[in-house]
Amino acid sequence: MCGIVGIVGKSPVNQSIYDALTVLQHRGQDAAGIVTTDNGRLYLRKDNGLVRDVFHTRHMRRLTGNTGIGHVRYPTAGSSTSAEAQPLYVNSPYGITLAHNGNLTNSDQLKEELFSTDRRHLNTNSDSEVLLNVLAHELQLKDKNQLSPDDIFDAVGNVFKRCKGAYAAVALINGHGLLCFRDPHGIRPAVYGKRETENGIEYMVASESVALDALGYELIDDIGAGHAVFISDDGTLHEKQCFENSELTPCIFEHVYLARPDSMIDNVSVYKARLRMGEKLAEKILREWPDHDIDVVIPIPDTSLTSAVQLAHELNVKMRHGFIKNRYIGRTFIMPGQQMRKKSVRQKLNAIELEFRDKNVLLVDDSIVRGTTSEQIIEMAREAGAKKVYFASAAPPVRYPNVYGIDMPAASELVAHGRTEEEVGQVIGADKMIYLDIEGMVEAVREGNPSIKHFDLSVFTGEYITGDIDSNYLDRLQQLRNDSAKKSKDTEEVEDAAMVMDLHNQ
Amino acid sequence: MCGIVGIVGKSPVNQSIYDALTVLQHRGQDAAGIVTTDNGRLYLRKDNGLVRDVFHTRHMRRLTGNTGIGHVRYPTAGSSTSAEAQPLYVNSPYGITLAHNGNLTNSDQLKEELFSTDRRHLNTNSDSEVLLNVLAHELQLKDKNQLSPDDIFDAVGNVFKRCKGAYAAVALINGHGLLCFRDPHGIRPAVYGKRETENGIEYMVASESVALDALGYELIDDIGAGHAVFISDDGTLHEKQCFENSELTPCIFEHVYLARPDSMIDNVSVYKARLRMGEKLAEKILREWPDHDIDVVIPIPDTSLTSAVQLAHELNVKMRHGFIKNRYIGRTFIMPGQQMRKKSVRQKLNAIELEFRDKNVLLVDDSIVRGTTSEQIIEMAREAGAKKVYFASAAPPVRYPNVYGIDMPAASELVAHGRTEEEVGQVIGADKMIYLDIEGMVEAVREGNPSIKHFDLSVFTGEYITGDIDSNYLDRLQQLRNDSAKKSKDTEEVEDAAMVMDLHNQ
Amino acid sequence: MCGIVGIVGKSPVNQSIYDALTVLQHRGQDAAGIVTTDNGRLYLRKDNGLVRDVFHTRHMRRLTGNTGIGHVRYPTAGSSTSAEAQPLYVNSPYGITLAHNGNLTNSDQLKEELFSTDRRHLNTNSDSEVLLNVLAHELQLKDKNQLSPDDIFDAVGNVFKRCKGAYAAVALINGHGLLCFRDPHGIRPAVYGKRETENGIEYMVASESVALDALGYELIDDIGAGHAVFISDDGTLHEKQCFENSELTPCIFEHVYLARPDSMIDNVSVYKARLRMGEKLAEKILREWPDHDIDVVIPIPDTSLTSAVQLAHELNVKMRHGFIKNRYIGRTFIMPGQQMRKKSVRQKLNAIELEFRDKNVLLVDDSIVRGTTSEQIIEMAREAGAKKVYFASAAPPVRYPNVYGIDMPAASELVAHGRTEEEVGQVIGADKMIYLDIEGMVEAVREGNPSIKHFDLSVFTGEYITGDIDSNYLDRLQQLRNDSAKKSKDTEEVEDAAMVMDLHNQ
Amino acid sequence: MCGIVGIVGKSPVNQSIYDALTVLQHRGQDAAGIVTTDNGRLYLRKDNGLVRDVFHTRHMRRLTGNTGIGHVRYPTAGSSTSAEAQPLYVNSPYGITLAHNGNLTNSDQLKEELFSTDRRHLNTNSDSEVLLNVLAHELQLKDKNQLSPDDIFDAVGNVFKRCKGAYAAVALINGHGLLCFRDPHGIRPAVYGKRETENGIEYMVASESVALDALGYELIDDIGAGHAVFISDDGTLHEKQCFENSELTPCIFEHVYLARPDSMIDNVSVYKARLRMGEKLAEKILREWPDHDIDVVIPIPDTSLTSAVQLAHELNVKMRHGFIKNRYIGRTFIMPGQQMRKKSVRQKLNAIELEFRDKNVLLVDDSIVRGTTSEQIIEMAREAGAKKVYFASAAPPVRYPNVYGIDMPAASELVAHGRTEEEVGQVIGADKMIYLDIEGMVEAVREGNPSIKHFDLSVFTGEYITGDIDSNYLDRLQQLRNDSAKKSKDTEEVEDAAMVMDLHNQ
Repeated sequence: MCGIVGIVGKSPVNQSIYDALTVLQHRGQDAAGIVTTDNGRLYLRKDNGLVRDVFHTRHMRRLTGNTGIGHVRYPTAGSSTSAEAQPLYVNSPYGITLAHNGNLTNSDQLKEELFSTDRRHLNTNSDSEVLLNVLAHELQLKDKNQLSPDDIFDAVGNVFKRCKGAYAAVALINGHGLLCFRDPHGIRPAVYGKRETENGIEYMVASESVALDALGYELIDDIGAGHAVFISDDGTLHEKQCFENSELTPCIFEHVYLARPDSMIDNVSVYKARLRMGEKLAEKILREWPDHDIDVVIPIPDTSLTSAVQLAHELNVKMRHGFIKNRYIGRTFIMPGQQMRKKSVRQKLNAIELEFRDKNVLLVDDSIVRGTTSEQIIEMAREAGAKKVYFASAAPPVRYPNVYGIDMPAASELVAHGRTEEEVGQVIGADKMIYLDIEGMVEAVREGNPSIKHFDLSVFTGEYITGDIDSNYLDRLQQLRNDSAKKSKDTEEVEDAAMVMDLHNQ
Repeated sequence: MCGIVGIVGKSPVNQSIYDALTVLQHRGQDAAGIVTTDNGRLYLRKDNGLVRDVFHTRHMRRLTGNTGIGHVRYPTAGSSTSAEAQPLYVNSPYGITLAHNGNLTNSDQLKEELFSTDRRHLNTNSDSEVLLNVLAHELQLKDKNQLSPDDIFDAVGNVFKRCKGAYAAVALINGHGLLCFRDPHGIRPAVYGKRETENGIEYMVASESVALDALGYELIDDIGAGHAVFISDDGTLHEKQCFENSELTPCIFEHVYLARPDSMIDNVSVYKARLRMGEKLAEKILREWPDHDIDVVIPIPDTSLTSAVQLAHELNVKMRHGFIKNRYIGRTFIMPGQQMRKKSVRQKLNAIELEFRDKNVLLVDDSIVRGTTSEQIIEMAREAGAKKVYFASAAPPVRYPNVYGIDMPAASELVAHGRTEEEVGQVIGADKMIYLDIEGMVEAVREGNPSIKHFDLSVFTGEYITGDIDSNYLDRLQQLRNDSAKKSKDTEEVEDAAMVMDLHNQ
Repeated sequence: MCGIVGIVGKSPVNQSIYDALTVLQHRGQDAAGIVTTDNGRLYLRKDNGLVRDVFHTRHMRRLTGNTGIGHVRYPTAGSSTSAEAQPLYVNSPYGITLAHNGNLTNSDQLKEELFSTDRRHLNTNSDSEVLLNVLAHELQLKDKNQLSPDDIFDAVGNVFKRCKGAYAAVALINGHGLLCFRDPHGIRPAVYGKRETENGIEYMVASESVALDALGYELIDDIGAGHAVFISDDGTLHEKQCFENSELTPCIFEHVYLARPDSMIDNVSVYKARLRMGEKLAEKILREWPDHDIDVVIPIPDTSLTSAVQLAHELNVKMRHGFIKNRYIGRTFIMPGQQMRKKSVRQKLNAIELEFRDKNVLLVDDSIVRGTTSEQIIEMAREAGAKKVYFASAAPPVRYPNVYGIDMPAASELVAHGRTEEEVGQVIGADKMIYLDIEGMVEAVREGNPSIKHFDLSVFTGEYITGDIDSNYLDRLQQLRNDSAKKSKDTEEVEDAAMVMDLHNQ
Repeated sequence: MCGIVGIVGKSPVNQSIYDALTVLQHRGQDAAGIVTTDNGRLYLRKDNGLVRDVFHTRHMRRLTGNTGIGHVRYPTAGSSTSAEAQPLYVNSPYGITLAHNGNLTNSDQLKEELFSTDRRHLNTNSDSEVLLNVLAHELQLKDKNQLSPDDIFDAVGNVFKRCKGAYAAVALINGHGLLCFRDPHGIRPAVYGKRETENGIEYMVASESVALDALGYELIDDIGAGHAVFISDDGTLHEKQCFENSELTPCIFEHVYLARPDSMIDNVSVYKARLRMGEKLAEKILREWPDHDIDVVIPIPDTSLTSAVQLAHELNVKMRHGFIKNRYIGRTFIMPGQQMRKKSVRQKLNAIELEFRDKNVLLVDDSIVRGTTSEQIIEMAREAGAKKVYFASAAPPVRYPNVYGIDMPAASELVAHGRTEEEVGQVIGADKMIYLDIEGMVEAVREGNPSIKHFDLSVFTGEYITGDIDSNYLDRLQQLRNDSAKKSKDTEEVEDAAMVMDLHNQ
């Protein structure tokens, strides 16, 4: 998962893009980057780290110009090194920089094509480099010095045809303008908005609407599936549906966990969707366990707060903040001759004994992935004196890997993979295990926007909307994730973003 | 406000102290430091920044040894530069390092004495350097190569006589052991605990019990007012009351805002104290405003969560997390030729419209200091569609400066200074303003430990428990705070912790 | 002036390229960079600073592979920022990195062409980026996945036709091999050599033969004017004359000052050339001033040492090292409210009084550019007690700017511009001024290789061998140098190589 | 070996001390530090590295004040880590910082005393910390708030009695002034001088007179053996002989190799002393080998240049700069799985074949220590075509370790230890080996100042002037050097000056 932002302003945009990236920081804390354009020259700063650590005054001073794009990154599947920060760059044609959120599922084939047909060298494993070069190639084929918006939309249409998977991308085409597009299934989110200023109208695109809110931009709309928005250098907004048979099937996990609650995604309030998930979960409990003996509902901070408060309300049970989250987490250092010690959940969460002692507690989490944290939390609840510990997940069982840009473990590491809900409860040690069902989750979201027919539900159902994911793909993915995990351990001390970065700017 | 920690372990303590500091990070995000002792040699690492930024693997490797102390700092009154990280050091006698939390109110006089009588040079404005040198001088007067615990306690007794104000301090006396003491009023908190390991018993002292919890230590007790604990190098715990007429009058603001809710301070659960504050506040509302028309209670994250949930419960009104907090806040850069722009609250908080639209909302904060943030938040609530916006503070009006180590503005900047509650409400734009009263707050805390007769309530009452604060002192303080504010603006880019640090290690 | 190196080895080349760059460090102390290729992936590290400061262990570990190129840079005319370190990169076609020494005199026109015809974006003012993109474009026109050596040489031939000026360049063409070529006049030097190892023959190219010596490579030959050498990935050496009417007219200033004395350039030993310059100078003195009263010859360290020792020998006068050079020069800092103070020559040189007191001294320098240093040195000699101070330059008067890659001031700043030799002597305060004449200098060099018909003598004669330099060009150059000087003062603290670098790697 | 400097000025001294340190950089390239005092506050910056790398603008801006001291360091015997940069600091009494050049030979005993009697903790292995604490203790015993110059000189007298070995030290006593003293044998050099300015007279002390020259100070005198100079805060110079039976026995190696030729040490011009060494060496050759067949004299740069030019002159043989020195030496990196490769002399020196081919060459070096470099150089000479290679050392055989602050290897690693001159010649592969004899060397120096009765000649004779060096001491030293060599290998990557530094500032 990543966050993207782009602004075509009427005054310097460096601070605005920086601010937008901090608002989107929850979408990726691994790396951050900004490119601006000023007088035909591009200025870039990117590095591993949080936004506040990557940009210093000296960098901001160089990021001149009224147009720019930015990116925060969470490592996605297949990225073997942690040094491939975005935006990325190619100088031919025009000079193009691009940042994207998502994952191309046919990047191996595209790499092959880029090499053999287009003779474009790729210097990273990043599928963003693939996407950038496919776009560059399609623009180059237009064979013009100055492209019209239609030329550009036409090229985006060809990108849509060639690139499978999930991608919401923002690109600066030097001498032309800022382009933003969303894949034909609209799996990853993107919105655009505007702000009127003394000097004229400014436009902004971003992964989530909160970034627009924070900067005082007014949301115009989501960028549709297979749709593109282009703001030319003169400040004019152009937009076009670039893929014929596109159908919006957005990733439902944005609502479950990824997005900020105060965002609107595809016209659905994430906050309301989560309230409804709590509601549906309450209904299910009351339906299936009418004589429950729950004394108190305790959310596991932070994401589940919204659904838990509604769940408690519907159950007519008290909700209490029984777990305190430590917001400052440090590293575990490997000393010479020592083994890596596992950071216990205890340093991230602490239980308020008062709220557990002699009570039947219902712990609520937004979802369960590996299950190891859930297990430790249940143990903490028991140590704090709980009589019974019930566990509710505001999402259905996560049983399959994600291939659309969310960094999830391989199937074999998912606690619900190949297990019934009850079995999961046993593994994590709950006295009772309650999952929201798929229908409930889908309804909870769709109520916000009934026009959305389908969602990407692949992590729950194993059905991949792009139709190109077979067991070979998933096996390779599992292999990659294992290899990259191993490699990252080996190279930790050796890596140097400043170095690798250079050559990634193609 | 600062956080301190010390461990006498049976195996290397670097990671443990680091972990404890991250747990105490809420007490100070400005600077961090660790000293360990190994084979008669001291190892120090400190710098400005968060714990996770200050310590890298190469530092941790050098921090060898089974005994050490640590510190996180929030700049306190009178500290003119931001570069005086702790622990501090003197080499004579024995080699002593010290870190402390609090503020000496007679440091000017002590500096004078140290200079003219003890001929000890102070190279910073930090009162920690004063405290360290007073301790060093008192130990030196013993004129012995090897001090007994009683010698040390005797010296601490003299420190108590000489040093006015608030201080909870931890010190490493080379060749002797680890010392921790709390001023005769016990204003700032300190606890100690132990952990049994294969290699023997380990002892730990810390500002708050959460640090002990996180590391698996068992709380033995608070360190009493005028009390000292000394763990000698052989691992034996000694303790002694070193001041005769001490009376515990702890700072009540720890319960209001400073401490983590999951801490026990002077045998009072901070969480429970806050629940009770919410309760008392509800009682006051029901008493004074029985026909209130509050539709929903909305806490301003994060501290007020605990009291707000209880307040809502007692009022029998829904509580909703209507504000979303952005956890990643960036800087505002000053570009050449630009003025500093104020970071709006809007980038820190975002309102969920659903919870405000057409409702009478009661916003709850833990306390109100300057009032400027409250004002902006009320405005946000109105923009989100609230009909009426009521504002409750879970603490009484803050009207006087703090001189015991909490970084609060001068009296003139406190919104409640010289204003009635109603007037404050008008200033911040609330339709109604409700403050918890002093009695309610005191009861809420004392209920947890009725043996506490008095609290330091100075920010609410203007009565300073140490008896040495007159208007001259407060005037000078106000001046200092203004000067230091100005100076820090001037020197921001020039400062260099690594540099100044060197000479502070005396 | 810059230094380039390239190696196609049979084992990792990072250390070898690093070592070669330190040997070539005298050609540029401003920035350094290395690219290696390993398994189709390129690895780059470059930054401002000396070789020993730019490369740390963590960088070297990433620079894997048996083939690579390197660069040390001295800022050349027209480079307005100091951050454009080399090698530079384009990803299309193939992935090409290039480093070069020299200066393109028609880069403005080429930029125009690259933009309008080739649609290649240039993101710096560096003519290296121009050269790289011209080469990339010419290779792209071949429209093949795998180029033959002849394809490559053909493209180089087209580069020769398009690019005017001086350039010795080394390039890595990914999937193909290492290419090195020298402009049709052979103005800047380049050599190639080989080394036999257990694993096969390794090839190396470099600006000067000393780099080959230091690494144990055997010099094969200079790369001729308009000639190219290509070592394909399989380790085979190919070479070809790629420009028909090329004529070697090497820059004679390499022999005067730039090159290391222990280098062979175009089959001429620089050391011997300098000895002969001393000889010719002695002949001139004996011829024109037979009754000279010189007591001692004192070289101004370091370059003039070689000619001075021979000059003294021929004059039959003692030579003494009367000036001691301080090898560690620091900066002059600008403190707030202070003016920049000029670093006096006195901190770079110190006179041994003994060798000056009551003597007629002949100071010898390799050449005179601005004359300000000479003036101060003469003053120092007088203060050290010299009776008479004569000044000899082992090169003729420097009267015109350099446009072929040597960083020399504009004409107006050259002390000999528009002045007779005698007038120069008066300006710098010498009792007598002696310059080697042009014929003498040319003979001194040509004696080593009589087949060289002409040299680039432009700084002495104002005649530019490439035929494209008119007064417009020189005026623009003067303007640029003034602007860039001003700008660099303004931006000194703001610049950040790591940042700009990124986008320069096209 | 180290360099020290101190200035009591009438305007800010930061730039002046910085400049002086660059002039003294040849005395130590390992670490650098400056302390200034301003308004009773001390400001320190120190770190490992060259002067130009240690001090940035932000540091210089903090180094305010008109008085300060500085230090450049070469690691001396017994210093096990490379992180103990100077000046060092103690806060009691007064606040004292000190930097020194030399080595205490009884530091183990002094450490014991400081610990058991004075209760002063030492946190490093540095004997500078010992010296500082002895001085601090002696000043403390005066038991006064304000010391008179005589009090201070009296304390220095006691330091002289307690501290054996070689030391030239500079110290800032806060609130008092700047103190400089030289051990009772005057083994290491120190000078003082003055400069008249508009604002009054400024004083400066330094290791060598070149530092005074470079800053425009006029040399007053050497600081005598057992002598001290104190410039009080009011700018008055005081001086006193503080040790009764002191006798100047300066280290003759300063003249052989350490000092800059343009320095005056104890009234002897180093340059002239070296000229005379060349003369004496010529006399010895003519005496012992009248029919020599030397064709050319070739100095090994840089130190031997001065003696070689005179040697050649007296032999009536040509001198030629046949070796070119590479002034930019890089590191050899250890790649994973690789062994450390030895950097060959070939990367530091290159032979000009012309000067060797078919000639009998006399190579001249200032001295021979391990002999390994000499051996490689002789081999290079042969490869360059020399018929015969003779080798001359302008100093006698170095056979014993140095205990007075010069970083020399243990006896067992000295090629001349236990070998005759002829045997040394065989080991290094010379066709003939010529050493200057001890008498010649002593005469060469003493001629400059006949009043110097004795020199420290210990590395040549094994007789240690301080009378306290026995075989136990030397054995321990050898052990230490081996251990420290080993340790430094282990910890290379781990060390962090910024960290250890802190605690060394006592």
